Amino acid sequence: MSSSVPNSDRKIVTGPAGYILEDVPHFSDDFPDHPTYPNPLQDNAAYSVVKQYFVDEDDTVPQKIVVHPDSPRGTHFRRAGPRQRVYFESDDVLACIVTCGGLCPGLNTVIREIVCGLSYMYGVKRILGIDGGYRGFYARNTIHLDLKTVNDIHRSGGTILGTSRGGHNTTKIVDSIQDRGINQVYIIGGDGSQKGAAAIFEEIRKRKLKVAVAGIPKTIDNDIPIIDRSFGFDTAVEEAQRAINAAHVEATSFENGIGLVKLMGRYSGFIAMHATLASRDVDCCLIPESPFFLEGSGGLFEFIDKRLKESGHMVIVIAEGAGQDLLSESMKESTTLKDASGNKLLQDIGLWISQRIKDHFAKKMTLTLKYIDPTYMIRAVPSNASDNVCCTLLAQSAVHGVMAGYNGFTVGLVNGRHTYIPFNRITEKQNKVVITDRMWARLLSSTNQPSFMKQADKIHSNQLVGEPGTMKW
Amino acid sequence: MSSSVPNSDRKIVTGPAGYILEDVPHFSDDFPDHPTYPNPLQDNAAYSVVKQYFVDEDDTVPQKIVVHPDSPRGTHFRRAGPRQRVYFESDDVLACIVTCGGLCPGLNTVIREIVCGLSYMYGVKRILGIDGGYRGFYARNTIHLDLKTVNDIHRSGGTILGTSRGGHNTTKIVDSIQDRGINQVYIIGGDGSQKGAAAIFEEIRKRKLKVAVAGIPKTIDNDIPIIDRSFGFDTAVEEAQRAINAAHVEATSFENGIGLVKLMGRYSGFIAMHATLASRDVDCCLIPESPFFLEGSGGLFEFIDKRLKESGHMVIVIAEGAGQDLLSESMKESTTLKDASGNKLLQDIGLWISQRIKDHFAKKMTLTLKYIDPTYMIRAVPSNASDNVCCTLLAQSAVHGVMAGYNGFTVGLVNGRHTYIPFNRITEKQNKVVITDRMWARLLSSTNQPSFMKQADKIHSNQLVGEPGTMKW
Amino acid sequence: MSSSVPNSDRKIVTGPAGYILEDVPHFSDDFPDHPTYPNPLQDNAAYSVVKQYFVDEDDTVPQKIVVHPDSPRGTHFRRAGPRQRVYFESDDVLACIVTCGGLCPGLNTVIREIVCGLSYMYGVKRILGIDGGYRGFYARNTIHLDLKTVNDIHRSGGTILGTSRGGHNTTKIVDSIQDRGINQVYIIGGDGSQKGAAAIFEEIRKRKLKVAVAGIPKTIDNDIPIIDRSFGFDTAVEEAQRAINAAHVEATSFENGIGLVKLMGRYSGFIAMHATLASRDVDCCLIPESPFFLEGSGGLFEFIDKRLKESGHMVIVIAEGAGQDLLSESMKESTTLKDASGNKLLQDIGLWISQRIKDHFAKKMTLTLKYIDPTYMIRAVPSNASDNVCCTLLAQSAVHGVMAGYNGFTVGLVNGRHTYIPFNRITEKQNKVVITDRMWARLLSSTNQPSFMKQADKIHSNQLVGEPGTMKW
Amino acid sequence: MSSSVPNSDRKIVTGPAGYILEDVPHFSDDFPDHPTYPNPLQDNAAYSVVKQYFVDEDDTVPQKIVVHPDSPRGTHFRRAGPRQRVYFESDDVLACIVTCGGLCPGLNTVIREIVCGLSYMYGVKRILGIDGGYRGFYARNTIHLDLKTVNDIHRSGGTILGTSRGGHNTTKIVDSIQDRGINQVYIIGGDGSQKGAAAIFEEIRKRKLKVAVAGIPKTIDNDIPIIDRSFGFDTAVEEAQRAINAAHVEATSFENGIGLVKLMGRYSGFIAMHATLASRDVDCCLIPESPFFLEGSGGLFEFIDKRLKESGHMVIVIAEGAGQDLLSESMKESTTLKDASGNKLLQDIGLWISQRIKDHFAKKMTLTLKYIDPTYMIRAVPSNASDNVCCTLLAQSAVHGVMAGYNGFTVGLVNGRHTYIPFNRITEKQNKVVITDRMWARLLSSTNQPSFMKQADKIHSNQLVGEPGTMKW
Repeated sequence: MSSSVPNSDRKIVTGPAGYILEDVPHFSDDFPDHPTYPNPLQDNAAYSVVKQYFVDEDDTVPQKIVVHPDSPRGTHFRRAGPRQRVYFESDDVLACIVTCGGLCPGLNTVIREIVCGLSYMYGVKRILGIDGGYRGFYARNTIHLDLKTVNDIHRSGGTILGTSRGGHNTTKIVDSIQDRGINQVYIIGGDGSQKGAAAIFEEIRKRKLKVAVAGIPKTIDNDIPIIDRSFGFDTAVEEAQRAINAAHVEATSFENGIGLVKLMGRYSGFIAMHATLASRDVDCCLIPESPFFLEGSGGLFEFIDKRLKESGHMVIVIAEGAGQDLLSESMKESTTLKDASGNKLLQDIGLWISQRIKDHFAKKMTLTLKYIDPTYMIRAVPSNASDNVCCTLLAQSAVHGVMAGYNGFTVGLVNGRHTYIPFNRITEKQNKVVITDRMWARLLSSTNQPSFMKQADKIHSNQLVGEPGTMKW
Repeated sequence: MSSSVPNSDRKIVTGPAGYILEDVPHFSDDFPDHPTYPNPLQDNAAYSVVKQYFVDEDDTVPQKIVVHPDSPRGTHFRRAGPRQRVYFESDDVLACIVTCGGLCPGLNTVIREIVCGLSYMYGVKRILGIDGGYRGFYARNTIHLDLKTVNDIHRSGGTILGTSRGGHNTTKIVDSIQDRGINQVYIIGGDGSQKGAAAIFEEIRKRKLKVAVAGIPKTIDNDIPIIDRSFGFDTAVEEAQRAINAAHVEATSFENGIGLVKLMGRYSGFIAMHATLASRDVDCCLIPESPFFLEGSGGLFEFIDKRLKESGHMVIVIAEGAGQDLLSESMKESTTLKDASGNKLLQDIGLWISQRIKDHFAKKMTLTLKYIDPTYMIRAVPSNASDNVCCTLLAQSAVHGVMAGYNGFTVGLVNGRHTYIPFNRITEKQNKVVITDRMWARLLSSTNQPSFMKQADKIHSNQLVGEPGTMKW
Repeated sequence: MSSSVPNSDRKIVTGPAGYILEDVPHFSDDFPDHPTYPNPLQDNAAYSVVKQYFVDEDDTVPQKIVVHPDSPRGTHFRRAGPRQRVYFESDDVLACIVTCGGLCPGLNTVIREIVCGLSYMYGVKRILGIDGGYRGFYARNTIHLDLKTVNDIHRSGGTILGTSRGGHNTTKIVDSIQDRGINQVYIIGGDGSQKGAAAIFEEIRKRKLKVAVAGIPKTIDNDIPIIDRSFGFDTAVEEAQRAINAAHVEATSFENGIGLVKLMGRYSGFIAMHATLASRDVDCCLIPESPFFLEGSGGLFEFIDKRLKESGHMVIVIAEGAGQDLLSESMKESTTLKDASGNKLLQDIGLWISQRIKDHFAKKMTLTLKYIDPTYMIRAVPSNASDNVCCTLLAQSAVHGVMAGYNGFTVGLVNGRHTYIPFNRITEKQNKVVITDRMWARLLSSTNQPSFMKQADKIHSNQLVGEPGTMKW
Repeated sequence: MSSSVPNSDRKIVTGPAGYILEDVPHFSDDFPDHPTYPNPLQDNAAYSVVKQYFVDEDDTVPQKIVVHPDSPRGTHFRRAGPRQRVYFESDDVLACIVTCGGLCPGLNTVIREIVCGLSYMYGVKRILGIDGGYRGFYARNTIHLDLKTVNDIHRSGGTILGTSRGGHNTTKIVDSIQDRGINQVYIIGGDGSQKGAAAIFEEIRKRKLKVAVAGIPKTIDNDIPIIDRSFGFDTAVEEAQRAINAAHVEATSFENGIGLVKLMGRYSGFIAMHATLASRDVDCCLIPESPFFLEGSGGLFEFIDKRLKESGHMVIVIAEGAGQDLLSESMKESTTLKDASGNKLLQDIGLWISQRIKDHFAKKMTLTLKYIDPTYMIRAVPSNASDNVCCTLLAQSAVHGVMAGYNGFTVGLVNGRHTYIPFNRITEKQNKVVITDRMWARLLSSTNQPSFMKQADKIHSNQLVGEPGTMKW
């Protein structure tokens, strides 16, 4: 489901020295006479100490912050946070929250903090949960949400609202929003779901409905562009260490032991890269962005042979989306099978490559390979402390934005500050590890693995300019 | 130990639209004819894929990134990373690493990655550990460090080099550096130690020695200005959850149960604030920056009484530096006792306030108060995955900077990017929670605690403008 | 509260070859004509596969199992488990559960499994929780318990029923039992609470009430005699490792670093001993059963000096009840202060001995001592997997026993089998570490600490015959 | 490799009232004039406090402890522990340790404590590690072991000696023992390895070599008879909870979500049973001992359908050896393929049954099944505190036994006491869950799953008398 937001709707504001604000839609664009009300926060005891309650209307955050004295100021996004005036009276609000796609640590925390934010800060009482992803809009009853029902949910992983892939039927969804009188829609999901959010927003605009749509990006792979990192990523990299430790112990305990760990990362290898950097026990990290080959000089088999001879054991981390070209070649069938969320249905590269390694070395040496797939044991844990705080601020930022009349935006951390980002910038491409970037060089230097690049690949990769993967460390 | 770097030495570079670079000293300032060599990284296999090996000389990072279209571009710091030319040949380098002050998760990881960075990236073989803090320069033998000795140290907390408070005798230290022929000094320590680093650097300059001094900021309290957060902070907030969970269970299991947890935070309440936000089980968070009082209307006792009547139990988190004014008043003795690092020697506010609460309520109600001080169980754990990666990049950035001839700098994350920051900006003041900032408002709204501010305090706090605590979420 | 069960009520059954069964009271003793009913278990689907539903009436378990060919068969206790006939019809049962004394991992699991056992196995629907310990019988309303309310409680530490020390007024308690028509009383508590249970049972017998009283022993110190180990002990020893690891890291990171950990153990040093054996990082373990002295030859100070000179650091584990004689001597006041449960109110030996060590070495050497008291962080965690299963079987055994008409008993593991033990055997003395036993010798050999025994102590200890501490490994 | 120890060598000692001691071989059987020496323990400072250093020659432990007044006393095994006289002088000893078969938490702890036990208690300095399992005797150099090399190994999982399956060539092994002058052989392995130990012992006896052979049973499945539980079992059940929690979260987050967890248990379902009992989130536990079928009334598919309709989600735990009959039937090929240790090479029942469930329900309902195989993440962790103490006592017991001249024995916990058990009793059969036992009934009642028994199975199972699985709770 691709959404190409017609160019005309991009709100570009320019300023001196190349300053550009890629702004997000606002109620006042379509309903200039829409009434506004004083933000209830100013009477909130907790906020009475705050010197500067409300974010300045002109506050923006630059996308690119490595600058030269004479660099153009470049693209900025609107800073998140509460505004002086709000576009909803508490009792008028009927909000709904939906969680889509795979699980990710922190989902329940985001749900909880949207409910707490709406209730404590804005006095909103009517909040519905959509049951089981987009399909829940039109095929299910809603779930009543209040402070009591969400009080302890952050202690467990998963989503109390249930989730599913696909089921996005824009018309049916907006019909249901309209029928129910919902006027605030919070969509927690990956890039597929954010495309769905953009389509819902477009339909709502077409029907001139006074409904706000806000996206909270959920991608354990961290493959959403522009934002620093997505919630749950830190927790996932932490949990992945258990699988890598186990692989290292198994590998060191057997003659020519190999421990092979498959980690999430359909199109982007951020989890595999960070888990490898954090561990220091990994000999080889294979990610979708860095092509590799098995046979012959400079191939994986040669490197395995070399490393086993050097240290007698080896740990390999492979992202689920790595080596799909090799897989499909060998399977001689198209791998354009897609799952219900439109994601490439992957063959299990872990099982496949385990078998290929065993077969290759079967006649050469005694080799013991142990394959570990910790995917669900990583996705299903509750978020750790730093992700918990990150989820809280994301949820509160989304609520502030919607109440302040902003619309059709995804909330996200840009250079450490919460901002409102237009849907199109989130859905236009995927955030990928740039293998010509220094972060990948650090990875290679920590594993001492070859780049596995054939001459052709090297030329291709040198053309890969693009904005370095926004995991900008 | 205060170091006032004579103004004349501040390297300020200005540019258009109010652009200011607060630069750091460089070898070339004092030794313009110092030979330079090609950076060995360009022949490093791991870095061969990197499209843009070296950081552009003009790359800088803004300190303030919430801007308006017409905001002056403001202060920038030099971006960290490898440069084209280096000022040391591998075999000429004799580096030393010293760890000072209290423990913090990640210390061993930083030590390890400085050794690995120097060896793998720059071929440096001669690296010494200074035994037991500054005192080790002149009162101890050095510790030989190489890849083998540091290989597994990141798996355990603490510091293999040992540490201590104080013992900073600039002359003796620089004598020792001179005698041993050390030409690279990596100092891992808090703001007291960074002041020591500044003094060492000044003395080295006075003696016109070709010695580079780099600081890596270590403060579990996160009270060092300018930088986003210090390594080990995430791990500390995570570990603090165990103590808060225990306090909550104890509190809920007894009639009028109170669980009181003392957390680190001598001058700044960041750990207490973030641990409270991450937990959601805390009723009251007391930090040094937010004065409170016990007796009378709006005081802590009144709030305790109210909250126990509401929910029958209560969890209080208090930073070690909170309420020191109350403590000293009651102890009628100066609390300007300092520990060897020059830090205010604190009376144990946790024990003190536990006793005051027990005494106050003794005749009013049966009350069970359990006091938990998890300080050492938090400081002594190894760093978690995200801190591990953060330590790696900090250490590598320090090594790149020193090899590139930069000097007298502290390395630190500014808006998500690694930079070189002049010592004076790190040591001029402490990073504190700004209680008129929205982050503290979020805290108050999550605990529903009163601000405990007497009228006088409210006026005082409203004058507290300053740059919001750089825990900019 | 001491309860001396009049000798005449001990049900002793003798058999051939010195066989003795110390039996527990039974309904039929006082109500020979009490109707019995078929055990509903026989129609329970889950139990339909069980070949031998019911425990044989003659099944007993020996207390002492290290025997010679000609040893007398010695004391046995009745085996726990379901019997053919039960003494309550499901709908007649009104059960209540009370938790007393300090917290211990597994309390909520025992509560849950009593409720599940009564409901699933015996169809009992009316189950009450007593709020906040013994006092709750007469000073509080009861808490309704059913499968739904207890479903998830095992995931959190503490007790959902609340607890307290003391408040045992036998008459008022039995009045309340009588008024409410309660006929099954499950008492989860330490030896003080089991003495209370014995008193309640006596009073019930005096009043000829058809009420069953069953005790489930809760003592994180493992100081209850006869039973192998109490629930929560394994979890506590596991959690204690975090504190010992932290103490070891702190000690090794400072010059002459000492990490001192205070663990539970008022009269018995089992947790300190097992945590030390499991850790291997402990240099010295001090327990109530093994007297020690500070000054002079063979004293603790001498050993500290020696060990610091040998390895430069040291970890000391001390049980809360150790060294109380030294403490009281120095405090010159009676330490016969008792807490509400009748337990000796202990001065904090950890704080006291830390200060004594600092004072002693102040003029001798730079020494850094870090004191860690993880008590509440150990007591408040949920039970681990093996304790979870142990709690389940204890709870089910108690329910089977009561339904089968047994009365006035404590359920407990004897040589790996669940049994019914008369109250008097549980409350007559405390289970202590026998320092002339091989387990303590293993401890001494693992820490290489001296026995700290002055000549006088050695003679005294050699008279300590007694049954080796029933932590019979 | 089956070893049938010729009947004549069974040392049976009988006593009054049906007392039978199944004794273990001793040096004095074959070398009546072998010199003995005073046990060095009596001069060991740590043991000086021990009142009764040495185990009484007549100390034995009964196998069956549920007795009646008139029960025959039955089978006993010799109690483990140090004896007055030893059969080796410290300097004469050349000991070796070998680890065989799959990994298990605690392997390194047992290795460490054999080395520490031999050194600290018996002054033995010459200890060799056999590299990589039985094959290492004749195909590898030995590994020098001393206190320094083993000091920290208990902190990591796996085995520092490396392991492998198979490679048992009795003649070559005993040749190597003879060539190297080894006189103490400690074999840590499962029932296959214990059979190997029995064969080695037999060959040694044939060659009249003065070599002691002791077995330490390692089976994460807990399928070795006679002993209470094997080391590492508690840790494995604890780690399994992570996988079950993840399966429960995944299942509850998706419409008709099923979480399926495969756990170890080739022939015995103890880990699956205990992990299920400890968790309370499991709906269905399938073990090798309890046959089940898929299709039709009373089958698994019917139960899945029913449970999904009841609660909308389901967690299934399946032991790797369960349902192999179904698997082989569908694969129409013999599954008598064996791995190098002689274990039935199992098809992955987890992958197979996942596919069968997906296929079955594909046209009936939307169902999301997530399959988790945590095997290596469980096997590879270090042992927890209670297993750590258990490993220590097992290792020390083996050392005491060998030094005291006992031979050809496996050390093991029987009713909570360490004993010496003849090889033949360990290898004669496997310890299995008896599904007509109350423990399995507890499992069924906690999951409310059907017994899946067809009429035929019920009759068969009722004949299953046998000694209840010695996981005697």
